[in-house]
Amino acid sequence: KAGKTNKQSAVLRTWLRIDKTGETSILQADKWRITHKLGIQTRDLRLLDPNLSTTYPSCILCRDKAIVVNLEHLKVIITTSFVLVVNPEDEKVLQFINEVKGRLAPAGTGMPQSRSYQSLTDAERLKLASGPSTLGLDLPFELRILECCLDVITGHLDNSTQNLEAAAYPAVDALGNKVSSPNLERVRRIKNNLVRLTTRVETIREVLEKFLDDDSDMHDLNLTAKELHEQEEQRQILLQQQADADAHSTVSTTGSRSSGSSSSASSDSSVEEAETAVVEMLLETYFMHVDNTYNKLQTLHEYIGDTEDLVNIKLDQHRNQLITIDLILTACSTVLAMLTVVGAWFGMNLNSNLQETPHVFMQVSVFSSVCGIFLLALFVGWLWRAKLIIY
Amino acid sequence: KAGKTNKQSAVLRTWLRIDKTGETSILQADKWRITHKLGIQTRDLRLLDPNLSTTYPSCILCRDKAIVVNLEHLKVIITTSFVLVVNPEDEKVLQFINEVKGRLAPAGTGMPQSRSYQSLTDAERLKLASGPSTLGLDLPFELRILECCLDVITGHLDNSTQNLEAAAYPAVDALGNKVSSPNLERVRRIKNNLVRLTTRVETIREVLEKFLDDDSDMHDLNLTAKELHEQEEQRQILLQQQADADAHSTVSTTGSRSSGSSSSASSDSSVEEAETAVVEMLLETYFMHVDNTYNKLQTLHEYIGDTEDLVNIKLDQHRNQLITIDLILTACSTVLAMLTVVGAWFGMNLNSNLQETPHVFMQVSVFSSVCGIFLLALFVGWLWRAKLIIY
Amino acid sequence: KAGKTNKQSAVLRTWLRIDKTGETSILQADKWRITHKLGIQTRDLRLLDPNLSTTYPSCILCRDKAIVVNLEHLKVIITTSFVLVVNPEDEKVLQFINEVKGRLAPAGTGMPQSRSYQSLTDAERLKLASGPSTLGLDLPFELRILECCLDVITGHLDNSTQNLEAAAYPAVDALGNKVSSPNLERVRRIKNNLVRLTTRVETIREVLEKFLDDDSDMHDLNLTAKELHEQEEQRQILLQQQADADAHSTVSTTGSRSSGSSSSASSDSSVEEAETAVVEMLLETYFMHVDNTYNKLQTLHEYIGDTEDLVNIKLDQHRNQLITIDLILTACSTVLAMLTVVGAWFGMNLNSNLQETPHVFMQVSVFSSVCGIFLLALFVGWLWRAKLIIY
Amino acid sequence: KAGKTNKQSAVLRTWLRIDKTGETSILQADKWRITHKLGIQTRDLRLLDPNLSTTYPSCILCRDKAIVVNLEHLKVIITTSFVLVVNPEDEKVLQFINEVKGRLAPAGTGMPQSRSYQSLTDAERLKLASGPSTLGLDLPFELRILECCLDVITGHLDNSTQNLEAAAYPAVDALGNKVSSPNLERVRRIKNNLVRLTTRVETIREVLEKFLDDDSDMHDLNLTAKELHEQEEQRQILLQQQADADAHSTVSTTGSRSSGSSSSASSDSSVEEAETAVVEMLLETYFMHVDNTYNKLQTLHEYIGDTEDLVNIKLDQHRNQLITIDLILTACSTVLAMLTVVGAWFGMNLNSNLQETPHVFMQVSVFSSVCGIFLLALFVGWLWRAKLIIY
Amino acid sequence: KAGKTNKQSAVLRTWLRIDKTGETSILQADKWRITHKLGIQTRDLRLLDPNLSTTYPSCILCRDKAIVVNLEHLKVIITTSFVLVVNPEDEKVLQFINEVKGRLAPAGTGMPQSRSYQSLTDAERLKLASGPSTLGLDLPFELRILECCLDVITGHLDNSTQNLEAAAYPAVDALGNKVSSPNLERVRRIKNNLVRLTTRVETIREVLEKFLDDDSDMHDLNLTAKELHEQEEQRQILLQQQADADAHSTVSTTGSRSSGSSSSASSDSSVEEAETAVVEMLLETYFMHVDNTYNKLQTLHEYIGDTEDLVNIKLDQHRNQLITIDLILTACSTVLAMLTVVGAWFGMNLNSNLQETPHVFMQVSVFSSVCGIFLLALFVGWLWRAKLIIY
Repeated sequence: KAGKTNKQSAVLRTWLRIDKTGETSILQADKWRITHKLGIQTRDLRLLDPNLSTTYPSCILCRDKAIVVNLEHLKVIITTSFVLVVNPEDEKVLQFINEVKGRLAPAGTGMPQSRSYQSLTDAERLKLASGPSTLGLDLPFELRILECCLDVITGHLDNSTQNLEAAAYPAVDALGNKVSSPNLERVRRIKNNLVRLTTRVETIREVLEKFLDDDSDMHDLNLTAKELHEQEEQRQILLQQQADADAHSTVSTTGSRSSGSSSSASSDSSVEEAETAVVEMLLETYFMHVDNTYNKLQTLHEYIGDTEDLVNIKLDQHRNQLITIDLILTACSTVLAMLTVVGAWFGMNLNSNLQETPHVFMQVSVFSSVCGIFLLALFVGWLWRAKLIIY
Repeated sequence: KAGKTNKQSAVLRTWLRIDKTGETSILQADKWRITHKLGIQTRDLRLLDPNLSTTYPSCILCRDKAIVVNLEHLKVIITTSFVLVVNPEDEKVLQFINEVKGRLAPAGTGMPQSRSYQSLTDAERLKLASGPSTLGLDLPFELRILECCLDVITGHLDNSTQNLEAAAYPAVDALGNKVSSPNLERVRRIKNNLVRLTTRVETIREVLEKFLDDDSDMHDLNLTAKELHEQEEQRQILLQQQADADAHSTVSTTGSRSSGSSSSASSDSSVEEAETAVVEMLLETYFMHVDNTYNKLQTLHEYIGDTEDLVNIKLDQHRNQLITIDLILTACSTVLAMLTVVGAWFGMNLNSNLQETPHVFMQVSVFSSVCGIFLLALFVGWLWRAKLIIY
Repeated sequence: KAGKTNKQSAVLRTWLRIDKTGETSILQADKWRITHKLGIQTRDLRLLDPNLSTTYPSCILCRDKAIVVNLEHLKVIITTSFVLVVNPEDEKVLQFINEVKGRLAPAGTGMPQSRSYQSLTDAERLKLASGPSTLGLDLPFELRILECCLDVITGHLDNSTQNLEAAAYPAVDALGNKVSSPNLERVRRIKNNLVRLTTRVETIREVLEKFLDDDSDMHDLNLTAKELHEQEEQRQILLQQQADADAHSTVSTTGSRSSGSSSSASSDSSVEEAETAVVEMLLETYFMHVDNTYNKLQTLHEYIGDTEDLVNIKLDQHRNQLITIDLILTACSTVLAMLTVVGAWFGMNLNSNLQETPHVFMQVSVFSSVCGIFLLALFVGWLWRAKLIIY
Repeated sequence: KAGKTNKQSAVLRTWLRIDKTGETSILQADKWRITHKLGIQTRDLRLLDPNLSTTYPSCILCRDKAIVVNLEHLKVIITTSFVLVVNPEDEKVLQFINEVKGRLAPAGTGMPQSRSYQSLTDAERLKLASGPSTLGLDLPFELRILECCLDVITGHLDNSTQNLEAAAYPAVDALGNKVSSPNLERVRRIKNNLVRLTTRVETIREVLEKFLDDDSDMHDLNLTAKELHEQEEQRQILLQQQADADAHSTVSTTGSRSSGSSSSASSDSSVEEAETAVVEMLLETYFMHVDNTYNKLQTLHEYIGDTEDLVNIKLDQHRNQLITIDLILTACSTVLAMLTVVGAWFGMNLNSNLQETPHVFMQVSVFSSVCGIFLLALFVGWLWRAKLIIY
Repeated sequence: KAGKTNKQSAVLRTWLRIDKTGETSILQADKWRITHKLGIQTRDLRLLDPNLSTTYPSCILCRDKAIVVNLEHLKVIITTSFVLVVNPEDEKVLQFINEVKGRLAPAGTGMPQSRSYQSLTDAERLKLASGPSTLGLDLPFELRILECCLDVITGHLDNSTQNLEAAAYPAVDALGNKVSSPNLERVRRIKNNLVRLTTRVETIREVLEKFLDDDSDMHDLNLTAKELHEQEEQRQILLQQQADADAHSTVSTTGSRSSGSSSSASSDSSVEEAETAVVEMLLETYFMHVDNTYNKLQTLHEYIGDTEDLVNIKLDQHRNQLITIDLILTACSTVLAMLTVVGAWFGMNLNSNLQETPHVFMQVSVFSSVCGIFLLALFVGWLWRAKLIIY
């Protein structure tokens, strides 16, 4: 029985709910029950579970009445009227919550404007909304939240990239100047971080690209529009039924009606295009953002690769220099060994019959010295001519 | 005659049949005969033959009335009402069979709930099925089995990946710290395993991706829906024939009927979309699972590659250090050889006329020592200034 | 005139013709004339010319009334009623011809059943054909021949791959254990073979993939179906003309007829799908076969690459060990050189005033020995602490 | 309050406005207000902000009534009647402004013709425009400006590439001849520049490729055509309304009208194709230009890579030569050491009983010398036969 | 004024015009004027200008009434009735002109038949053309010229590739046997040529692939067919206008006419397919040709890469051998240095009290020799057991 309760408590979970006016409330509820209303699969919910051992890659899933967003640490369910946030105590998530509140709050109301540019944009939007702004200037609620998610995540990734770059370029340059174990370790750590960060950025880049490649998926993201269409459709069906009922009496109007519906169909497609365009422009901007971050990482990757290539050549060339010098020293030693042999032999306690001959000492010394120096010069000269010591 | 019997027995094979209620029975039957009913080619059956020498890569084939699943060791034929499992004695397959039975068993009935989460999901589904859950919450039989196959396989691959990772990271780090033959051997073995596992994961990833790219293929996987459509069509044809028979008598109704059929056509497309969506969401989840596993393997691959690059540089730099020290030692030797020459020459049994001169011993010793040390210092200083021993 | 005759004889060529019953006949005919009937371009025939200097890559071309197959050594033209084989004397082609004959021969009739599995399948097919086998169980003639071509070629490539693998793995492992010139040569030869075989397999893989990507191309391969459609069309046109002739008298039937033709159109598309499916399933199977072979070659390629990487590291590490030992020996030599200097100096025939002092011999010997050993120990200790001899 | 003013001044910005006649005026205006009229999002404007820290990658965005061009330093908004240029004081941008003015200026009017070819083309165009030039010879204003942007940018990139090539090839060849630290540094700098330039060229190449892949996007770029279509449509609607009003009186004309509108629809598609073709040909040319630049950079990249590979082999081979010579010298030293041992031993102050024996000195000298030379010859001969000194 | 004349003369250019019968004439004309008739942009003409500094990559552009071909040195404009060739004095272009003339000349008429195969094909075609050859056997003029261009270029590239291969394989094998500076230089030059040739082949391959991927582009290449369609259309419009004029009198025929036009529409699509198929088969053949060349270059590239890898390993292994021998020599030297020390010490002019002791000389000599040999054996044995000299 305890086990069952345990399971229950694991299923019961705290969600943070933010509604359209930016007000938040804590929801202590069975997640299955709640999400049932949103047409979400239990499979999708597993993605959002921060307690599971396997971490799922980033993704944005578009479901019937909700968007399931799993971007790194942001695990959010967005509907047309409220947002559910998993793990609201997490510090990074808190930042997101504040951002959302700030954007939803009516302009002019409190809250220190940490990102004045953005808030200005919002204020501007409200101002513009009163004018004849036709397209995309007043985003529906779910897209504003999605924008916020993307904004926070791309900012986060861009920050990480900039931090990595700030650490990487000096470290790589240091390695280029001096190959030492600590430098090698630093670069290795940086390369590992680079690989991991690149995977993360690439995942989000692919998520956005996939949406941008498929117009119908983008249109689905516009939940508000979808809802409106459904209501419209139901209204149409009702009208149709009424019309059918009327049809028994009057026949002549049918033609004109059908032409009317076809005209609405043609306008429908242009409306749909506009609704898709809103989403497209939103995603496109953040795709470019992420793509930019990705390009930066690629450039860093190539920079490290090129530096390593040249460090390798540098080490090789340095080694060749050392070996060349070693070679010349060995040649000196060999010549000296020859002189030693001369000395050792004349130092033998054997009778060479030259012991008392005068000037032999000088003759031997000078002659062998000259021989040695001549041989050494010959050798170095040969090396030079054979182009073995030009490096 | 014996040969023929032999062949027959090879053709007769034991299948495990699991029906909708989870009950199993052993089928001792000619596989050609049985599968003939399922519209499967003999070519497809070859894929499932565990005795053939060549192992076929993983694949999921959608046939007329059955899905042929060949995922690694799982070789299964799924129809709308039962499952045929090849090689049911295999241990890994047994695990799959238990999983299937557990899922098919009515909730609450026996069997230790090894995967409580999943079973809860099922229970939840049944509960939800009574509510107005419209979409995908009550999967048809064949998709539940397919989900089970994918679940078992992705879990299996993920396990293998985690085992490999657990073995690989310490081994690679050990190689990074100390290059030795055993470490090299270990990393080599790990790399081979990595290549093989990556190929397997990639194959399954591509199988799922291919389905996700083609909506009509996904719709075909929904065998139950296909069957219903066919029955519906036949019913329509019958109705049409009746209608045609009636048409001789009444003409006026034709218009309204045709409009009715067109409306059903329009609803058809949305129904088909929903049926496809069920399959899409199912495959999408497991695709993300496999993709995640694949990313892990890629990251491991890059980690090994980077470590090898840096091990190479490390070895090179270490060698340069050794050669630098060797060079300095050689210089010492050379200087000492010079001193030896001095000693040897004065040790010659020749008359240098200095034998009895006082202080010459000290003069020679001190002068040549100073000369040697000076030359050595000069040489090392030059090396230093030429930046040849900064490393 | 001789030149012209020569050219003629080059154009006249021997073909082997196999008809539906498996009977063969030699055709001594002008190839241009013969192939003219088959709607084949002279360009296409160049592909089949075994005497041309440039070898064309593998391809399968679908022409109006024939399939031109150029798969490695198999150069065949397939029509709906017979096959033309180029170069029938070639040994590899003979094998193909026997295979074709065996398959075409009525089951039960003679000929040693070298591939009992396949023949059984055929027998099975005939048996099944009497039953209600709806789909693809009785392939049209041209597809049976195409299957045979693919079967022979994929088998041939798979064999080559297995032979290469059997030679490669031991050779590479030998290189991993011992780097020697013969081993290097062996691996080099294997790599060249691998590159060439991979290109061949890849070409065939791409040929099949291209067909699988394009449904209309696959449908064109089903020549029999195409012919039937054309006959049907002409029959329709005739009927239509008749109908038009009748139409002057009766108008009322037109509506029903048009509905009939539309229904045949709708059924047409499903028939076409079925015809395409036959080809698709055929090609799919062999694509998987070739893909499997391709994967094997890729794995082998990576295995060789990984081994080379590690051989490189191994050689480097081995070299470092050698240099480390050399360094220590050099240190010993240097210390010994110092002792030699001491000996040489005291051996000088100069007056050191110590010649007769007692115990100086021992003092000098012991002191300089201790000094030397101390210096050596100091040096090795320093190397150790600087982590220069941990490897 | 100061902060607010500050922000305002940041928002107020100077734009350079160029109208159709090539006249320029400075616009000191709130950028939000101005751009509001152009249906541009504030998001898009961020791309153009030269003061932001993150630099956005190159892109061309097609909005409702304007094209937003952000190609490297060119940040321009193009409408059907005027151009807005950001940062007009920048030198590179000035060049662009002059180019634009030159093209817009009526032919024959002043301004030194720096690019005579282009201006001639323009003149030619005007001449030709009087003839029956149907297609694309008189580009609409916005496309002429876009062409100018692309012309300036591709020219700029091509210049950069040529400069890089001019610097790179000598540097790489120098490295190929002599591996030295300065050469390595030069090549490293060049590689970094190459990577960065390649990224820039690739970005623009992808921007153009994306447009070329999507006909509808290309058509959107033709703003003038879009405007005309919209006006036409509104005119049609007006006419329709009139027609509907008339319809009550006359019915017979409806049929012909509908046929008229359908014919206009068919001609519409061909008109649209022509409008798209204008843009396609424009972009295609510059795509080929950029692709050419890209290919050059790729070739340079491979050239550097190949040189590095061979420098590596060269260094290795050189090192082997050095080590071979070192080996022979060491062999000489060893032989000399043997002779030294002989000398040293006979020089020991111990009684060998040979001190006074005549001819022993010569015997020992000659015998040991011959021995040494023989050993050396043996050793070198063995090296030779073992193929260790062929290199 | 001089400048203007200059420009004019640059614009006036000599073209070689070849008409349908193979007759050539030189055209001295303003290129802008001439090409204006062909619906070609001045932008396109720039591609053909051989005097411009930047060389454009190969491309085939399909314009309204002409095909602009820029394949390497072949710069040609093809229309339905004549060909314009740029730079007719160039030797390579002359070869092309002769080829074209040969093909256009009526069969049997003079001109030495250098390529008898091709001419036979032509003769054959003419013969066949009298029969019921339906498809592609009598290519329209512009496609025959295009085929000729492709034939010349692919032949040219194939020649270059064969020359490169003939030079490359021996050079690379020589490098594999002996690493020397001249060999390295040769391989480097070959690699550069390979990269450049690969780029050229790849460009043409991509040009053809692009056409093959897009059916409508291929259809556009069939200029003759396009012209016929346009004429047909205009005829239709005229007929329609007549029919409309008639329509006032008779209504009943409209139905049959519309059915007729629809039937022509259906046949139209199959005619278009046939027209496209002609072009497709033409391009396909040459694509396979170029692809084959490309594969050869790829194989060569991999061959060089593999050889380099193994040369690297070979050099490393050789170096290790050298160092191993050096190590053993150093060990010998060290042992000899020990013996020298013994000799030197006993040679000191100090009183060891052993000077006159008999047999000490032999004892010292033998004992130290044995010690030395023992140490050396110990060292070498240790190396062996530690597997340091197995290589």
